[in-house]
Amino acid sequence: MPLKLYYAPGTCSLVPHIALELIGQPFEAQLVKMHKGEHRSPEFLAVNPAGQVPVLQDGDETITQIIAITLYLDALHPQAGLFPQELLARTHAIETLAWLNNTVHTTFNRVFKPEGAVDGEEMQAAVRAKGKQGYAALMERLQDKVVAARAAGNDYLNGASIGVVDAYALTVIRWSQLGGMVPEQQWPQLWDYAERVAAQPAAQRAMERERIRLRAQPLV
Amino acid sequence: MPLKLYYAPGTCSLVPHIALELIGQPFEAQLVKMHKGEHRSPEFLAVNPAGQVPVLQDGDETITQIIAITLYLDALHPQAGLFPQELLARTHAIETLAWLNNTVHTTFNRVFKPEGAVDGEEMQAAVRAKGKQGYAALMERLQDKVVAARAAGNDYLNGASIGVVDAYALTVIRWSQLGGMVPEQQWPQLWDYAERVAAQPAAQRAMERERIRLRAQPLV
Ligand SMILES: N[C@@H](CCC(=O)N[C@@H](CS)C(=O)NCC(=O)O)C(=O)O
Ligand SMILES: N[C@@H](CCC(=O)N[C@@H](CS)C(=O)NCC(=O)O)C(=O)O
Repeated sequence: MPLKLYYAPGTCSLVPHIALELIGQPFEAQLVKMHKGEHRSPEFLAVNPAGQVPVLQDGDETITQIIAITLYLDALHPQAGLFPQELLARTHAIETLAWLNNTVHTTFNRVFKPEGAVDGEEMQAAVRAKGKQGYAALMERLQDKVVAARAAGNDYLNGASIGVVDAYALTVIRWSQLGGMVPEQQWPQLWDYAERVAAQPAAQRAMERERIRLRAQPLV
Repeated sequence: MPLKLYYAPGTCSLVPHIALELIGQPFEAQLVKMHKGEHRSPEFLAVNPAGQVPVLQDGDETITQIIAITLYLDALHPQAGLFPQELLARTHAIETLAWLNNTVHTTFNRVFKPEGAVDGEEMQAAVRAKGKQGYAALMERLQDKVVAARAAGNDYLNGASIGVVDAYALTVIRWSQLGGMVPEQQWPQLWDYAERVAAQPAAQRAMERERIRLRAQPLV
């Protein structure tokens, strides 16, 4: 039975989606139409009670959380290059991945759904505004990491080729546009990097299936 | 050269601190006095520009992020039991660890430092209040996980003995008291579990060095 990924276009499920494309073996991609509320349907809540994507199913096993899913995929397919092989390089890739997951992603949540942090429209607007400032500062730091990788001779955060950490970086750089930022003007070297990641065949295939492009329109 | 951990008592650095005690080899524990602002000192910012603990140093290498640090320690000491050995058990331990890190911990940040989310005292109070509600709901879910583990014959989230995921669970259960919750009344089975984790020799040694107890007074 092939692995099955539940995904919603352009969300953080793009990270394991690209990972599965890097592995290059057949998998089932199950679209969850979030704009239609399908993640709140009884069927999907039976799969993941948290009502979130990504979810990976391997036979009877259900795995959530990007970090757990991608390390699992890496353990199944150690030759696919999802993470660096060498321990210290691998550790630093996981370090950046964890930061993207616990800091960048959660800052974006305050931009995109400030109702998670506070009630009332006025206070939500204030949370969103501060979230945008914080997100811009984090994009600056992400650009520093990309510049440092290049200075060390690596085209990607993962090394010479893209890995899970680059898939997550691509996802959050794309999101900056949803939050009204203009990454190609604000962080040109970061945007250049995002274009290079998005041009990789595995990223292209995943983005084509999700019917998204790197370029995206502001949502908030 | 022994591994060196920068820690601040009772913060999330307790997680790798317990992990190092589980390994049981000599390490250097470097106290960072956060109440004196030492994490904002030029000396510490040279170690971690983000001004946060935990930081692990291994010779010239500096590693941040709990998940990266603990997976690195596990790779160095695979026999120490920091994570389950079997792939699926390991994956589910990492799944819970990631959730503690990206969801529970970040919700506590809104309780403990709402100034990260919004400006102005009134709005910060509103963010804190909603954060406390959210934190209580997450403790409920953590208790569900502990109950499910016991039903499956495991005393701990890690399995038959404590691992990194239990060290993190202990840390966040203890924090609930800092946020004014009363875990032994609100989640008795969770508190019972926290007491069992805290009674393990490795947890005891780390908590003694940090001069903290499981029992803690409300701070906010
Ligand atoms: N901590 C989770 C985050 C998952 C997450 O935030 N998923 C979002 C999409 S990016 C989602 O499903 N949101 C719908 C909701 O929360 O209602 C992970 O690392 O996998
Ligand atoms: N994402 C980091 C979180 C580290 C963190 O939140 N550290 C807190 C203590 S629990 C800290 O150093 N706070 C001081 C500050 O941010 O100023 C990790 O997983 O290691």
